[in-house]
Amino acid sequence: MATSVAVAGVGMHPFGRFPDSSLKDLARVAILRALEDAGLGVKDVQAVYSANALAGLLQGQEQIRGQCVLREVGIERVPVLNVENACASGSSAFREAVIAIRAGVCDVALAVGFEKMFVGDRDRSLAALESAADLEVVAGLGLQFTAIYAMRLRKWLDAGRLEPRHLVDVSVKSHYNGSLNPYAQHRKPVTREEVIDSRPIADPLTLLMCSSISDGAAAVVLVREDRLAGNGHPKVVVRASAAASGYTPVATAQPSTATICADSAYGQAGVGPAEIGVAEVHDAMAPGELLYYEQLRLCEEGGAAELLESGATALTGRIPVNPSGGLSSRGHPIGATGLAQIAELTWQLRGEADQRQVWQPRFALAQNSGGWLEGEPAACNVHILERTAAWN
Amino acid sequence: MATSVAVAGVGMHPFGRFPDSSLKDLARVAILRALEDAGLGVKDVQAVYSANALAGLLQGQEQIRGQCVLREVGIERVPVLNVENACASGSSAFREAVIAIRAGVCDVALAVGFEKMFVGDRDRSLAALESAADLEVVAGLGLQFTAIYAMRLRKWLDAGRLEPRHLVDVSVKSHYNGSLNPYAQHRKPVTREEVIDSRPIADPLTLLMCSSISDGAAAVVLVREDRLAGNGHPKVVVRASAAASGYTPVATAQPSTATICADSAYGQAGVGPAEIGVAEVHDAMAPGELLYYEQLRLCEEGGAAELLESGATALTGRIPVNPSGGLSSRGHPIGATGLAQIAELTWQLRGEADQRQVWQPRFALAQNSGGWLEGEPAACNVHILERTAAWN
Repeated sequence: MATSVAVAGVGMHPFGRFPDSSLKDLARVAILRALEDAGLGVKDVQAVYSANALAGLLQGQEQIRGQCVLREVGIERVPVLNVENACASGSSAFREAVIAIRAGVCDVALAVGFEKMFVGDRDRSLAALESAADLEVVAGLGLQFTAIYAMRLRKWLDAGRLEPRHLVDVSVKSHYNGSLNPYAQHRKPVTREEVIDSRPIADPLTLLMCSSISDGAAAVVLVREDRLAGNGHPKVVVRASAAASGYTPVATAQPSTATICADSAYGQAGVGPAEIGVAEVHDAMAPGELLYYEQLRLCEEGGAAELLESGATALTGRIPVNPSGGLSSRGHPIGATGLAQIAELTWQLRGEADQRQVWQPRFALAQNSGGWLEGEPAACNVHILERTAAWN
Repeated sequence: MATSVAVAGVGMHPFGRFPDSSLKDLARVAILRALEDAGLGVKDVQAVYSANALAGLLQGQEQIRGQCVLREVGIERVPVLNVENACASGSSAFREAVIAIRAGVCDVALAVGFEKMFVGDRDRSLAALESAADLEVVAGLGLQFTAIYAMRLRKWLDAGRLEPRHLVDVSVKSHYNGSLNPYAQHRKPVTREEVIDSRPIADPLTLLMCSSISDGAAAVVLVREDRLAGNGHPKVVVRASAAASGYTPVATAQPSTATICADSAYGQAGVGPAEIGVAEVHDAMAPGELLYYEQLRLCEEGGAAELLESGATALTGRIPVNPSGGLSSRGHPIGATGLAQIAELTWQLRGEADQRQVWQPRFALAQNSGGWLEGEPAACNVHILERTAAWN
């Protein structure tokens, strides 16, 4: 039987704007919190996978980003690998840590993601983000992610699969969830009117539908399940790790990259979408969540609007989605996002999510996508976690 | 028993100056050659680990560097991960591919490394290289790798462990080997006088002792050993993969990061240094090879000069080191170097190294280091490969 991997500890530095904190400051907080949560110390870490997407262009630290951060924390000598997959960098670090433990390379691995996008020059931050696509194809076109999401949503609106109000409703839901999350960048509930009246970004998207430039860090400690010491939390194990890249034009009938990953993950975990009790999905723009309802098979094709309207994906629903507020409200510091999803789901599975706790989930799904090539993400990771203990 | 991994195919784009070739052009050649060498096609690849160190700063392609290159080749849908560990990026990609196969994630993985350092502005290339250290510590100091190597060698010279002639002799050896390698950047043998009289770079180093700015790519196809179809070559398997990072000050008596990795690798492979039949070591400056003789235990401590003088590390010696010409003569396009080492050792183990073929090696060792933190490399990888068939 394959080696089973547990999530022993998670930690975050709040997401937001932190002009006085360096990358090291952000990462240190997340790492030390994750280790404390796991009941482990820096000397227990046997391997590190470090995720960051933009520090080359934004901080000039093109190389050994992880090592620079880890020396600050006192983690040394162990193998460290810097990984990057655009907005999916964090979940890619998590996945490699899972793989390393499964391969028997180590028993305790740290996955950490950090990003500092505020550099006092918004245009520079936006230009750096543009490199999530092939610059030989898109350089200078102004094709930011907002535009890609907008075009997809426009298509769904034109096809009658969504109405404008759904885009507004899902944004209100995300902001409400974010308002309950102490780590979130945007912690104020918003009204439908505020969403509609906020500045247009790329039709049909308005400002309050979009994730914003953000600083932050998140870390996860993974331990081989049979080496896991009791750490005072209900145990959470990794049941599936699926990854794919894709760039086949959207027009074809092939499944989306997210669907390929989800199907693989469901197969690995031996569960179906109906058994997922909570999900974090990659809503860089809040309405993107609606696309993923279908791509992850949380509803039938064409059923996204109805699933939202039914309230099923609200905190109190059958399958709460983005209880953290998602990328659009929790914030989206690129390299940290995928690990923040894992942190949120771990808290939810343990019953430690306080005001935003959903009802007794057993299985949780995280979907994190990054970059794009002709309309499909350049990288997509889907993970399924399980709480192994019964709820009282 | 752990899953065994074989090197099924290797391929390189020559190293040198290729102003008319893009990163994609370089990588495509290496990938297609490696696949052809393995007897496999692009559709057989199940996972990709892509190594590059400088494309964010030098080409602006900060994110999804691997995906951009792979779409060019027609590899799609499979998991792709971009990895970086400064000058050890290539061997880090190789290591992750080994780990993925051992974990059962895939049966066929591609590791590819590519770099384009010539950008028509030498100062820009050198400034990008500076980011292999913690910029908060070294920015603006002018502490290039040449200076680090120079200081270490100066120390050994002052301690009487080396004499200046050894630095010259090992450089002549590297250039001779490089002259026999069709993939090498520097393919002209040099005399002792030419080395001595070449431009001083950082005392005691002269120009002909140093690796230079380079473009190039290398790729390796790895296959789970029990799924390996006959591809017409003697089989080469991975017997050890060891990695470490380190920054403990050199002054302490702790073993070097390379020694930590080598000891781990010897343990994994169940062989000692005496059984290694050929080695590729990280001589970004040719005399650096001498330091590694000791750190990798190819000789006793203090025995580097004698090992060189004995001729043991020449092509015709007992333990030939850097038959490819090493970084200093083959060239050192950062992200490609670690995989070029694996390619060279694979050719040597198969008996396919033509004019630079060493005598019937069974075990081969590759050591690749990258970045630095307080005098020790930020990343170091040591791999041991074995030819499983007897030599005729």
